[in-house]
Amino acid sequence: MSQPRYDVLAIGNAIVDVMAPAEDAEIERLGMVRGGMMLVDTDQANALYDAMGPAREISGGSAANTLAGLAALGAKCAFIGQVADDQLGAVFAHDIRASGIAFATPARPGSDGDGPPTARCLIFVSSDGQRTMNTYLGASQFLPAAALDEALIADAAVLYLEGYLWDPEEPRAAMRAAIAAAKGAGRKVAFTLSDGFVIERHGDDFRALIDAGDIDILFANEHELAVLTGKADFHDGMAALAGKLPVLVVTRSEKGAVAVAGGEQAAVAAEPVGHVIDTTGAGDLFAAGFLFGHVRGKALNECLHLGAICAAEVISHYGARPEADLRELVQGMAG
Amino acid sequence: MSQPRYDVLAIGNAIVDVMAPAEDAEIERLGMVRGGMMLVDTDQANALYDAMGPAREISGGSAANTLAGLAALGAKCAFIGQVADDQLGAVFAHDIRASGIAFATPARPGSDGDGPPTARCLIFVSSDGQRTMNTYLGASQFLPAAALDEALIADAAVLYLEGYLWDPEEPRAAMRAAIAAAKGAGRKVAFTLSDGFVIERHGDDFRALIDAGDIDILFANEHELAVLTGKADFHDGMAALAGKLPVLVVTRSEKGAVAVAGGEQAAVAAEPVGHVIDTTGAGDLFAAGFLFGHVRGKALNECLHLGAICAAEVISHYGARPEADLRELVQGMAG
Repeated sequence: MSQPRYDVLAIGNAIVDVMAPAEDAEIERLGMVRGGMMLVDTDQANALYDAMGPAREISGGSAANTLAGLAALGAKCAFIGQVADDQLGAVFAHDIRASGIAFATPARPGSDGDGPPTARCLIFVSSDGQRTMNTYLGASQFLPAAALDEALIADAAVLYLEGYLWDPEEPRAAMRAAIAAAKGAGRKVAFTLSDGFVIERHGDDFRALIDAGDIDILFANEHELAVLTGKADFHDGMAALAGKLPVLVVTRSEKGAVAVAGGEQAAVAAEPVGHVIDTTGAGDLFAAGFLFGHVRGKALNECLHLGAICAAEVISHYGARPEADLRELVQGMAG
Repeated sequence: MSQPRYDVLAIGNAIVDVMAPAEDAEIERLGMVRGGMMLVDTDQANALYDAMGPAREISGGSAANTLAGLAALGAKCAFIGQVADDQLGAVFAHDIRASGIAFATPARPGSDGDGPPTARCLIFVSSDGQRTMNTYLGASQFLPAAALDEALIADAAVLYLEGYLWDPEEPRAAMRAAIAAAKGAGRKVAFTLSDGFVIERHGDDFRALIDAGDIDILFANEHELAVLTGKADFHDGMAALAGKLPVLVVTRSEKGAVAVAGGEQAAVAAEPVGHVIDTTGAGDLFAAGFLFGHVRGKALNECLHLGAICAAEVISHYGARPEADLRELVQGMAG
């Protein structure tokens, strides 16, 4: 098996985030669950956008955010995801390429009005930094299996997949094919569970993938762990899952994170943050730091520490992609 | 003359800013003048965008930014400007309306590929907060005189115009017609000179407007004052212009600002700012604060102070529109 050209190849939603501050009362009035992620159709997206304050647009998408963090740390990355050939699609493509990430999935017709536009996530950010997300998937849900490049999959040490993309049928089929290709090439598969509701919809699929040994590294937060395992107690949840996965990483917000790998367990405290501005992307950037450590062969506690540093950076400002120089922030650890 | 419905009606470029941090060496390498504003065509815009790092999109446009500040302070505002019927046009329209500003100029065909798209300004932000702007005017330069609503002009206490929009022919004609309409209705005309190069191109027009008594309130920065008057010395420049204008306001960056009105002169120091992040919109928000004081009948020094507070807020974060609650910041002054 030759040395792979990329550290991480990710398949994920190609989304531009539309972000604005919001009062919690407004979030409730609009029928959203504070801190949640809801899929919305065109009419819902338009109504929520109308209700939103002046916003800013910043490229997002869970796995794409993770890659942006990995690339900022110095990893070689590639992304597969579906945009439309419209202005937001051009914004997404620019931002990911400008981050140094290879991205070659052709844009889908959309600007002529016949196809769905590039995906948007309308994010209402509360004054304590909590984010409430409303995702209009648009073109992103039509990522075809044909967009996969098996040679590319074989050429990346880790294939990284987001659970969010398990909802729509075409990308789900594409991800199943990608897992088979990665496994066939002897590469690792990393998976993030993304969201409790996603697990409620697709938990059987996820548990089957885990039981079949198709997932080498699983990322979850505490709530997702509980939903996937059916165990309300954190330790019970960890115990139920740890033996089935080479690496299990569970983030616990301000309580830090825990990882179990090959019988070894490690934990890290959350990094101190002066002022939490916007928690969008916290899990994505934790995964970035952890995966970076993993592909560089770091010890488990160091991987967790790298994750905590990256997560702390991204919640200190608006937007789910890093702004500070992550290599500088992890100085001495990123070698 | 009845009580006008709006405090300020502005005519300006309808632009979405595309902003990214940049090294000064890179700004030089790309042939830009640090701190300047350059008009770019499609090819130049594409080449500069390709050279730009991961960016964020935030609605901008000089006069539109000023209105956003005015509206945040509690003024009633309306905007006239030209977007295309594309995604960035929808972003601009959303943001200005979500700021509480009336905006009814119909979008121009653009998304079908036949017309120019919504204007963008590619802004490279240096580590000291200096901004270097590259404006692709697109649809904005085709604002037709037909977009003017004379009843609306007559219904605003102040008509506010930006010099930037003097470059393209159609909006220039529209602004001349707007000045005539405002004057005919007994309203005030405020004008911002915008940029030294704009004055080099159109100084004769601007001086003629001033000499004809068409401008009641003129906003300039120190450099623009020198270019317009041909006087290198600040005090000589003020002396040359002050007698020709009911109100003259000159901003001087970290040296604060000076205003002369009816023989009275006042000055204000710059507000202290913890960390200057991005100076985009500093002049626009100074004008917002000053105009707010003016339409509320405040004393000249209070108008300047309001301007300084608003400018300080906008340079403390990315983007040329206010993020903090301006009414709270000027508490006790905004009554």
